[in-house]
Amino acid sequence: MISVAEATRLVAATIRPLGVEYLSLTLAAGLVLREDLRADRDFPPFNRVAMDGIALNYAALAAGQQEFRIESTQFAGQPPVAVADAKAAIEIMTGAMLPAGVDTVIRYEDLTFRNDEAGHRWAAVQVPAPRAGHNVHSQAADRRQNDLLVPAGTVLGPAEMAVAATIGAATVAVTRRPRVAVVSTGDELVPITDTPAAHQIRRSNGLMLQAAAETAGALTEAFHFDDDPVALRQGLPALLTGFDAVVLSGGVSMGKADFLPGVLRELGVEQLFHEVRQRPGKPFWFGQQPGGAVVFALPGNPVSSFVNFYRYARPWLQAVQQPAVTVVAAATIPAVLTQPVDFKPPMTHFLLVSLEPGPDGRLLATPERAGGSGDMASLLTSSGFLELPPDPEHFPAGTVLPVWRFR
Amino acid sequence: MISVAEATRLVAATIRPLGVEYLSLTLAAGLVLREDLRADRDFPPFNRVAMDGIALNYAALAAGQQEFRIESTQFAGQPPVAVADAKAAIEIMTGAMLPAGVDTVIRYEDLTFRNDEAGHRWAAVQVPAPRAGHNVHSQAADRRQNDLLVPAGTVLGPAEMAVAATIGAATVAVTRRPRVAVVSTGDELVPITDTPAAHQIRRSNGLMLQAAAETAGALTEAFHFDDDPVALRQGLPALLTGFDAVVLSGGVSMGKADFLPGVLRELGVEQLFHEVRQRPGKPFWFGQQPGGAVVFALPGNPVSSFVNFYRYARPWLQAVQQPAVTVVAAATIPAVLTQPVDFKPPMTHFLLVSLEPGPDGRLLATPERAGGSGDMASLLTSSGFLELPPDPEHFPAGTVLPVWRFR
Repeated sequence: MISVAEATRLVAATIRPLGVEYLSLTLAAGLVLREDLRADRDFPPFNRVAMDGIALNYAALAAGQQEFRIESTQFAGQPPVAVADAKAAIEIMTGAMLPAGVDTVIRYEDLTFRNDEAGHRWAAVQVPAPRAGHNVHSQAADRRQNDLLVPAGTVLGPAEMAVAATIGAATVAVTRRPRVAVVSTGDELVPITDTPAAHQIRRSNGLMLQAAAETAGALTEAFHFDDDPVALRQGLPALLTGFDAVVLSGGVSMGKADFLPGVLRELGVEQLFHEVRQRPGKPFWFGQQPGGAVVFALPGNPVSSFVNFYRYARPWLQAVQQPAVTVVAAATIPAVLTQPVDFKPPMTHFLLVSLEPGPDGRLLATPERAGGSGDMASLLTSSGFLELPPDPEHFPAGTVLPVWRFR
Repeated sequence: MISVAEATRLVAATIRPLGVEYLSLTLAAGLVLREDLRADRDFPPFNRVAMDGIALNYAALAAGQQEFRIESTQFAGQPPVAVADAKAAIEIMTGAMLPAGVDTVIRYEDLTFRNDEAGHRWAAVQVPAPRAGHNVHSQAADRRQNDLLVPAGTVLGPAEMAVAATIGAATVAVTRRPRVAVVSTGDELVPITDTPAAHQIRRSNGLMLQAAAETAGALTEAFHFDDDPVALRQGLPALLTGFDAVVLSGGVSMGKADFLPGVLRELGVEQLFHEVRQRPGKPFWFGQQPGGAVVFALPGNPVSSFVNFYRYARPWLQAVQQPAVTVVAAATIPAVLTQPVDFKPPMTHFLLVSLEPGPDGRLLATPERAGGSGDMASLLTSSGFLELPPDPEHFPAGTVLPVWRFR
């Protein structure tokens, strides 16, 4: 039996970056970028007018000129107009390229307009002279051409989509989505649409693990096998070669129908560990088919499956989407225990908690009254689990501990 | 010009629950439930064996009996066996239904086995007598038949999917996804695949807002209109009747090409407000087509569009998926300002910040050095925005403020 730290290390050692695919940007939201996005032009690419109003030469304003003849009008998207008279102004709109010869924009709110008898339009500046360059978003103020904007490995969220569009990255290199086979085992399980007999229950881990894997970017397919070595030997090989990961639940403990560890080894899957000093989830089995799938064989109790998926499999799914091998992410969010907790065995304890922000900005973790690893309903009212290290045995209220969030 | 509080109230007043659709559970992950899910049976539905080992009668153990003859074996999924001898035991597997006549399970780890000459198998208990019911997950220990498990309005996450499957909710009532038209305007904008002239830029707000809306559960379609009242009058009516929300960016400020407020009113959209005392995003226009779409006409600067989408439109999209009218969610996560901030105008200030958990469990917010509402790149390095109320003007380091996260 190994420690949680050692199990984490062995899972991390199987991480290999998945292949790249080239997608239209419009289809790439939420995927992991596999190329650096660099600025094709300066940001902004030109001296960009930031307010609707007039553009003028600051020197004239500073010299005491307060009223400016409007020489022409320039809209956003129009080539910059020519400025004939250094003492005149151009009526100009937000987003326009500031023409040469003017350097400052005064917004409409700070102007009054009049027409003279000759039909000329004049704007009078109603505020003290601002600084030169006022209301102009200067070329290259934010980023320079060729600057790294979005490094490979970043998830393409809304902001990254905007930047990719701006630089014309109409096709982007992204990690292909991990393919995950989710397999439930257990003769007591009947399909969702069936009415179970008194001693049966419906299959639920499969849909749970599929939903969890898909929130980590995976494409999933669901399978069920009876607790039968023949069925397992027939069904598993296609999954071990056709998927990046096989996530099983059930069949890994000490029971007489727990055939999975034996069958997996028979099929050539290299066992990397079996049993971890942790609760829930002690019987967790982990291995890898040479040249094929990584196998997360999780204990079948729903809370064990769920917690171990979030603790080991989800970070793995996120890591294989990265361009380089990265360490499986630790639970980096700290939370404050609101009640004392005692836990005797020398095991890491994954404690279901509800989480809420405290008034002082700290995240407060309150232990759920859970009925053990079979109490699926306790997952509904908790939103994460604290990772309590094997020692000490007593964790007083106020202890700050890492939390794994699943909501 | 109205306050942020008043704008929030007016947006909230347009919230109406969207219609219900009935989906296969396998297609419903991530959607909002529109029916209560109740326990079809007790949780667990029977006295469920929680460990692999033997089931016995606790009274015999308490009376001093240490060795038990194995009368039969029962696997998970098998009907419970009959117990003939009150002093014998049944070898039994996790997930099995505990038969009548036995009440306690001793796990394999705490047993030794031997065979006698008559061919009988015996198990000797190697630990002190535990309590009656040990390693049995009692019927109804977690929930009772007909208990409310998942109330309407809950998002179907992995835990909810597991519970829905368990109770046989093969078809579930969920909110249909909101349909959102995302519209960019601006003559300076060219398609992503084009090479812009010196005074042009590529369209980026559309993809940004589509990606943001889809993370809130929306189905989106993208449109672009030139800054031309004729094009707007022709194109907008179909969107105002065919979508739940129309999210526009650009064309709402004081410029001579800012036709949107006028055209929208002309088309019968009721203006609910125009201009909010906030930065960025002062020119935000909001209205509703009677019997049709709600219209979020956001300012075109990318940071303005982005922040106002997250501040007003995203909570609206989440609220209309709820079964009953709910108040638009406030930013309930508090964060601690790491640097002092001064902000003079009597306006609410949405301040881009990077967020990281502090060692004491508090979320620390560090202001981004942003180049204003046109600085799209500042969205890449920030992960939320603080909402600084109009007064005071000075916010010292250590101030706890609500934060809107977008990562």
